Amino acid sequence: MINPNNYCVIMAGGIGARFWPMSNSKTPKQFLDILGEGRTLIQKTFDRFAKICPKENIYIVTSKNYKNITKEQLPDLQDDQIILEPYRRNTAPCIAYANYKIKSKNPNAVVVVAPSDHVILKEDVFISVIEQGLQAASENDWLLTIGIRPSSPNTGYGYIQYNEDKPYAKNNSIYAVKTFTEKPELEMAKSFLESGDFLWNAGIFMWSLPSVLKAFNAYLPEVDSLFKQGEGLYNTPQEADFIDKIYQICKSISVDYGIMEKAQNVQVFAAEFGWSDLGTWGSLYELRKKDANKNVIAGNHVKTYDTTKCIVNVPKNKVVVVQGLEDYIVVENNDVLLICKKSDEQQIRQYVADVQVDFGNKYV
Amino acid sequence: MINPNNYCVIMAGGIGARFWPMSNSKTPKQFLDILGEGRTLIQKTFDRFAKICPKENIYIVTSKNYKNITKEQLPDLQDDQIILEPYRRNTAPCIAYANYKIKSKNPNAVVVVAPSDHVILKEDVFISVIEQGLQAASENDWLLTIGIRPSSPNTGYGYIQYNEDKPYAKNNSIYAVKTFTEKPELEMAKSFLESGDFLWNAGIFMWSLPSVLKAFNAYLPEVDSLFKQGEGLYNTPQEADFIDKIYQICKSISVDYGIMEKAQNVQVFAAEFGWSDLGTWGSLYELRKKDANKNVIAGNHVKTYDTTKCIVNVPKNKVVVVQGLEDYIVVENNDVLLICKKSDEQQIRQYVADVQVDFGNKYV
Repeated sequence: MINPNNYCVIMAGGIGARFWPMSNSKTPKQFLDILGEGRTLIQKTFDRFAKICPKENIYIVTSKNYKNITKEQLPDLQDDQIILEPYRRNTAPCIAYANYKIKSKNPNAVVVVAPSDHVILKEDVFISVIEQGLQAASENDWLLTIGIRPSSPNTGYGYIQYNEDKPYAKNNSIYAVKTFTEKPELEMAKSFLESGDFLWNAGIFMWSLPSVLKAFNAYLPEVDSLFKQGEGLYNTPQEADFIDKIYQICKSISVDYGIMEKAQNVQVFAAEFGWSDLGTWGSLYELRKKDANKNVIAGNHVKTYDTTKCIVNVPKNKVVVVQGLEDYIVVENNDVLLICKKSDEQQIRQYVADVQVDFGNKYV
Repeated sequence: MINPNNYCVIMAGGIGARFWPMSNSKTPKQFLDILGEGRTLIQKTFDRFAKICPKENIYIVTSKNYKNITKEQLPDLQDDQIILEPYRRNTAPCIAYANYKIKSKNPNAVVVVAPSDHVILKEDVFISVIEQGLQAASENDWLLTIGIRPSSPNTGYGYIQYNEDKPYAKNNSIYAVKTFTEKPELEMAKSFLESGDFLWNAGIFMWSLPSVLKAFNAYLPEVDSLFKQGEGLYNTPQEADFIDKIYQICKSISVDYGIMEKAQNVQVFAAEFGWSDLGTWGSLYELRKKDANKNVIAGNHVKTYDTTKCIVNVPKNKVVVVQGLEDYIVVENNDVLLICKKSDEQQIRQYVADVQVDFGNKYV
């Protein structure tokens, strides 16, 4: 039975530069069926949490620009479950806003906060972890995060070091956190992996409302006081105007930097459920089914010759013939074509910026 | 002053597999502005011959499928100047047909026959050569062809060996022909180049009507007799039905193989006027303007990074980012994209065939 106090906040404000031109500012990654499964990433995220929380307790936080696409993709949502941020202010203000909005409905809420655009392959394990985590968060004054047992020295993730001698008595996968670290260099990442007490930071948080509000009050008091002023306005016709006003003056800061790295009651749930943040074409390549030549092909009219280890992602009816490429990305969307080496994909942000400068906003 | 007996037959039946997908069966190479000059190849061919022949003496021989595009691109033509072949039968029947059609208008015609899809960079030299050639053909019982002084051991062309000791007294660039050769292997082509008495076969012919009709009667009598039956029907409402009937039974043979290689009165005009048959992407690459990275770019929204010696030919408004390619072809047209190594372009015919089998006729 689903606990009626379980709430979920799905953060969906990403603007989609990374998988350009498959993603773009009109349709960022979270709104794409990037794995070709028939459901977009945000739909799959919603589906997972709908097994943990009552559907009416699931909130999406996104930009005004994505209100319509969110409603289209998640028709089960009521309008007041779509929290619209007027400006981009990183994760802390987004979470503070959602906290107060939920508090006005149910002060006993226990909340899981998660990104909208990650991949979870082992859904059953994930659901079990979140359910156990929410239960633990409801019983303890904790800021509980999820750490993924690392399988490689990935330099694209932040890491969480935990105190392996002190598992939580009721669940020996939950540990006190020692440190959060930024994305490491490769040598550092290798030593993290060897040490065995570092986990990947999945950016998923669980807490009771009293615990998280207390933490905001302690570590980000200027953010907290802005949103606290709105008590009585949340879920009323005055909410939007109030939010627009305070977002203009609210600082932009991540919840990791603003709270998690500073608080003393941070715990980590060490887990492994086939997680990826899908942050790179390389990670997408790893996840997707490959053909006999190790190519990942999306498109119904694609032919390859002497081509291996490539990602070809093109509109369904586009005829594409690719010959003589190894380890390349070939992506077309909305009349934009990108051909580049998989190993140089970190330069894509620069290409997007150049295209915007040279050819205008409509292509990015 | 233009000689009113000068006639021109432009052969425009090519079906466009070679520059696919820029060319395709709907719009073969001759109907493309492949050099980006504002005029298509057939338009440029027409323009050249309009300086040599009265416009009303210029005939286009093409397939019924290309009647409309021919009229669109060459609005100066009257309908009876567009000779429509109901079936593809190679060059000899095409020329026999044109000969009899012209004969019914002007039995004193002297005719130049030329492909519609070649490039001539030195137009003044070309015009002078054709004018001299037509004059010589009007004065002699010759089958006169044009040989291009070779600049490289090109294996994509046929060669003509000439008798350099015997130039024509009135024009010492015209020689008796010794042999025609098929496209040679590289070693053979090198020795042709060194010998100095081999020329590239440009596929351009000049002759008086009596000379060419006599040659058809002698070397291709079964073809000649078919078209001779139609005397009295050419340029009448009965012509199309008659032609449809005889084309069904006419054999398919080239004028080179059927006549030029057998006749004893073949002469060659040795010339050099910046000629290319534009038979390969490589030849197009050589002819077009290159950017600082030696790329040939057609398209207004193309950005390249770490990319050299490539041909990028895409729709004007398509945004294309290419990174990390050397010596590749990237071509898009009509929702078909081809990426392949320039060195492997001879395989393009196979790709076209595969696409036709797998995805249907509409893409080729």
